Order: sequence, then C-alpha cells, then structure tokens
Amino acid sequence: MFECYTEPHLRRQSGRSAVVVRTLRTFGAGESNIAEQIDHLMARTRNPAVGTTASEGVITVRIVARAEAADEAQARAQRDADEVRAILGPLVFGEDDDTLASVVGRELAARALTVATAESCTGGLLGKLLTDVSGSSAYYLGGFITYSNEAKVNVTGVPGELIETHGAVSEQVARALAEGCQARTGSDYGLATTGIAGPTGGTPEKQVGLVYIGLAGPSGSSAKRCQFSDRLNREAIRDRSAKTALNMLRCELRDRALLRNTKR
Amino acid sequence: MFECYTEPHLRRQSGRSAVVVRTLRTFGAGESNIAEQIDHLMARTRNPAVGTTASEGVITVRIVARAEAADEAQARAQRDADEVRAILGPLVFGEDDDTLASVVGRELAARALTVATAESCTGGLLGKLLTDVSGSSAYYLGGFITYSNEAKVNVTGVPGELIETHGAVSEQVARALAEGCQARTGSDYGLATTGIAGPTGGTPEKQVGLVYIGLAGPSGSSAKRCQFSDRLNREAIRDRSAKTALNMLRCELRDRALLRNTKR
Repeated sequence: MFECYTEPHLRRQSGRSAVVVRTLRTFGAGESNIAEQIDHLMARTRNPAVGTTASEGVITVRIVARAEAADEAQARAQRDADEVRAILGPLVFGEDDDTLASVVGRELAARALTVATAESCTGGLLGKLLTDVSGSSAYYLGGFITYSNEAKVNVTGVPGELIETHGAVSEQVARALAEGCQARTGSDYGLATTGIAGPTGGTPEKQVGLVYIGLAGPSGSSAKRCQFSDRLNREAIRDRSAKTALNMLRCELRDRALLRNTKR
Repeated sequence: MFECYTEPHLRRQSGRSAVVVRTLRTFGAGESNIAEQIDHLMARTRNPAVGTTASEGVITVRIVARAEAADEAQARAQRDADEVRAILGPLVFGEDDDTLASVVGRELAARALTVATAESCTGGLLGKLLTDVSGSSAYYLGGFITYSNEAKVNVTGVPGELIETHGAVSEQVARALAEGCQARTGSDYGLATTGIAGPTGGTPEKQVGLVYIGLAGPSGSSAKRCQFSDRLNREAIRDRSAKTALNMLRCELRDRALLRNTKR
C-alpha cells in the first residue's frame, strides 16, 4: 500500500533511482505486536519505508530503502535491518525465502544433529514442512503420526496410564511423545504435537485450539502450552501448531549455540 | 469465463431466472483428457453450460443449468451430471466440498475399516490430508514418516536387502512399506509412497517425478508406478503422489464394494 503512496512522491521529489528491499521473517508474535515494537520506523514519509504483512502466522517486515546511489540505499536498508533485528531479537528467524523448516534444517545440518517427530493434532504436517526442504534426509530421521490414543501407546510407547491420568492433550503426553520418537529413531531431538484442532473435541477445561508442543533433547524434555485463538479454524490451528514446534526447536538450537559461545 | 458470456445473453433472450450449479470432482486424468471426453456437452451456447477447471491435480466439471422454474433447472443439471458420471466413471470421486481424503474416510468409516500410512517422498503430507478431515481418528490408525533408508528399515521393518537390491524407489519397497505400516498398526489397509520429488536425486534410470505407491489390503499388496511430468516442481510432485495414494485406496474400496454387490 505504502508503495503506491511513497514511490511517485519520492521520485518527483528527488529523482532517487536506487531501491534496495530487505524482507525479514518473524514468528511468535502477532502483526500488531510487531508493528508496535518498530512503530518509530514505520512513519509514512520515512525513507526507508518499513511495513509489515502477515501470512499464515509468519509476520514479514519489509524495508524499502531509496537513494541516488545503490551503496547508499544498501547502507540505509542495512541500518534499518540491524535495528529491526536488535528490537525484535529471536522473533526474527530469517530473510527472503527462509522458512522455519529451512532455518531449523540449516542449523541441524551445520552441527550434524538430527530430529524426529511424533504428531497427533498436526497429523503429518510437521513432517511435511520439514521435508519441504530438499536434502532434509540428512537430519530428519523419521516421524510417527499418532493421531489415535492407541497409536500413541503402540507406535511411540507413550505409557497408557499417562493418557488416562492427564489426557492425550497434556504436557505429560507431549513430552512422552517427544521422548518416544527420539528413543525409537535414536535422534538428537524429538519434536511432538498434541492438541485439539477442532471443530469438535473441545471441553470447558480443554478448549479447541489448546495444543501442547513437546521437545526432547540431549539434556531432557520440556513442553509448551499454546491456546490458539478461537478465530482460527482447524487448518490454521494445525498450521500454527506445526510452526510453533519448529520455532521451539529453532530457539533451543539458538540458545544452545549462545550458551556454547559464552562458555568459550 | 463462460458466465460473463452466457449469463447476460440468456437473461436477455428468455428472462430465465432459476440457476442450478453442480460441481463434480475428478482425479486421475488431465484437464484436456476430461474435456475431450465430455466435449459434446461443452459447446458455448448450450444450456446447461459445462466447463472444467484444474486445481492441484483435481479437475472439476462445473454444470450450470438455467430455466424459468427451479425444478426444471434442477432436472437439466441432474441429466448432465448423470451423463458426465456415466462417461467419466471412476474418475469422478465426489461433488462440491468432497476431497479424496474425505471420500476415502467416508468409505472406510461406513464399513468399519482402518488405514495406516508409511511415507517416504510425501514426508507426512498423506497423513496431513487424511487428518484434514475432522473425526479421522475413527479410521486412521497412524503413520510412519520414513524419509531416510534407515527409518524404512528400523521404523517400518522394510528388509535392508530389498533396498540394496531394488533401491528405495521401487515397487518392492513401496509394497514392503505398505505391508509394514499395516502390520505395525494392525490396520486393514496400508498405504505407502516412495519416490524422487526432486529437484535433486534423479538418475537416468530413475528420474525426478518417479514415484511408487504401495497398497496393502486384506487380500495382499500391490504397487503402482507413476512418472510425473518434469513440469511439476517438488511441491506438486509430493501433492500428486499423496493424492494418487488416496485415489488408489478409493478405487480399491470401490472395486471391493462392486465385487461384493455382484456376489450377492
């Protein structure tokens, strides 16, 4: 939208001809939250022009810098990109064509680490996203789709008592699923989803959109509770669940790298 | 496109006000092939107007019938729908919002049958499509994503010699994967994919787009060889592979029902 407005305006004003565009991809916060944090960069008449767009949970920050010379436009875009990264921190997962899966894959491959998956509510989508990346067999050891409770027990070895006591949609079962796929494939990491994608299956205690993400790693396992908005439909809840799982592994790999660098 | 042309034209001509639309979904043949088979129904000035559209491998036949009275429009649409179904036979898998996964699910549920999956090249997409359908845990017992050769052996019990002798992308391994997931979950049917989604990994003997679909059922197993066009990219090859697998199970369930009805 801002392009229709600023482009002819700037051209008339100064004849600036070099344009450099940077696109930073973020995940984990809503568009209004992102826009609020970088509000001072988003003034309409500013150069670079900075705007946000949202697509399936990924918020993109677009920086359009203009100048008479290409290197000046480049420098302006770089300054803004650095500032956006400094403000948003780990919310930024990559640029341009990067996806959460490609970034996670790159990090795993660079350190010769591997991952496996166990999926309940995402039903295969998490594996699909990981294998969208050509060459993913180098680090993706395999996955289990344990949509039914029987499969959770028989296929990934989740103790039946755990499901009886806490329910299939619980922190405990998410962790057991993650540990199960890690153990059965011998992977470094296990990533799991269990939740209520709807439209049916919700209860007053566990509503549609409640999803637990389990992550098992070399130093133990953990689970994250997500309650997705009731404005999201089944497809969107599954999409956000799979992406949240990838993002959880990304942040874990990032924290581990920071820790290692600090220790040195 | 034809609407812009015929609608005002018909209105002016006769004042016909009742419109009935039928949409028939087909899979397994290209749009030009479908159009050739029903060419005589697709004349521009005909009523009903019949047209085709293609989206991700699914070819839709759209019938728009007009008449002064609703029941007459309904009857005309019905006649054309019956004729299209008679000509295209099992290529038609459903109408309106039906998907291959929802139709397969309905057939399985109606006969209390179950299915499991083992996915190599589709990497979880087949499970994702099956679980797009709410309530699919009634017939989908679970899945294995065996993207690496190690996972094929360790997770679904494919004999290592089979991979060494025939390669992971082969009829033999497709059948072994289907039998493996069937055996490990105790499902009635096992459905498997193994292929080269590209862009890398192709050889002169086994080119990008070569995919084998394995199907194991109560009376044995079989595999289907597909060589997808080199115009399809990785995403499209994976999409068509998963849909071809669903369609193979759909046709199997259909043939079995026909056989049973004949025996009676």
